[in-house]
Amino acid sequence: MNALMPLGMVSDVPSENQIITMSDASTMSDEGHPAEKTDYFVERDGMKYAGTHLLIDIWGAERLDDPAHIDARLRAAAIATGATILHSHFHHFSPNGGVSGVVVLAESHISIHTWPERDFAALDIFVCGDCDPHRAIPVIQAAFSPTRIDLDEQRRGRVA
Amino acid sequence: MNALMPLGMVSDVPSENQIITMSDASTMSDEGHPAEKTDYFVERDGMKYAGTHLLIDIWGAERLDDPAHIDARLRAAAIATGATILHSHFHHFSPNGGVSGVVVLAESHISIHTWPERDFAALDIFVCGDCDPHRAIPVIQAAFSPTRIDLDEQRRGRVA
Repeated sequence: MNALMPLGMVSDVPSENQIITMSDASTMSDEGHPAEKTDYFVERDGMKYAGTHLLIDIWGAERLDDPAHIDARLRAAAIATGATILHSHFHHFSPNGGVSGVVVLAESHISIHTWPERDFAALDIFVCGDCDPHRAIPVIQAAFSPTRIDLDEQRRGRVA
Repeated sequence: MNALMPLGMVSDVPSENQIITMSDASTMSDEGHPAEKTDYFVERDGMKYAGTHLLIDIWGAERLDDPAHIDARLRAAAIATGATILHSHFHHFSPNGGVSGVVVLAESHISIHTWPERDFAALDIFVCGDCDPHRAIPVIQAAFSPTRIDLDEQRRGRVA
């Protein structure tokens, strides 16, 4: 991550747009208009909320300047949570510099921003529905071999 | 946001890749190899950290099913913080359904996930360097006219 000297090298890692077929036509009326609105908030542990947002700071981490590796491993992390990948984009700031990237999911997103000069990266994983963001942690550990992980969990859109 | 019935309608809102020229060649040695690594962490209020991450839940909000509006206003929000936009991607889940999107910045990212059926959206703004994420709030208020905003601020990568 490099706010002061951003060299515009968008990584060649291909983005992948996954077209999802509509699996439940019952929410459309006969005229093709949306019928009654469905409530997509989740209910768990006596709480009702929109989704779970993990903020993950990793320290002493490796391979933080390798956009192809980061893209592949974050995709694997997304799949481990049970999510569906819609799009990804990674930006490499300079040779051997930081990487910024996002994976847009049908269930929200995963992002990463790396500071290789400090062996540090900030990730977040936001998923709704039945996905479990904690299942991404072993994938992240294996990918970057951090010596420390700081984890913060937020339940977004909590209504009860 | 719609985890259970994702209709694959990637919005037609154009993504924009902004090529940034290298403004400081002093970090490259004569041979074109990176010279001494620079530390891009920021120091403010007696703290040293990677960047500021705002988690913003908005309620009673409008226009949450309009990807073109959301794209335009999040770009304006990014610019208000002082950030440089590298890429954006928005996904519209179904006619009148939720929108998921991200704006990748030279200074990290902005994301949004909307649940129009609850007039709710979850945003986050992560910026490093001299950018001020709080400057995005008035832009978000004007864009979506929420009746309530819940704000959580995290300093990512805090070392002191």
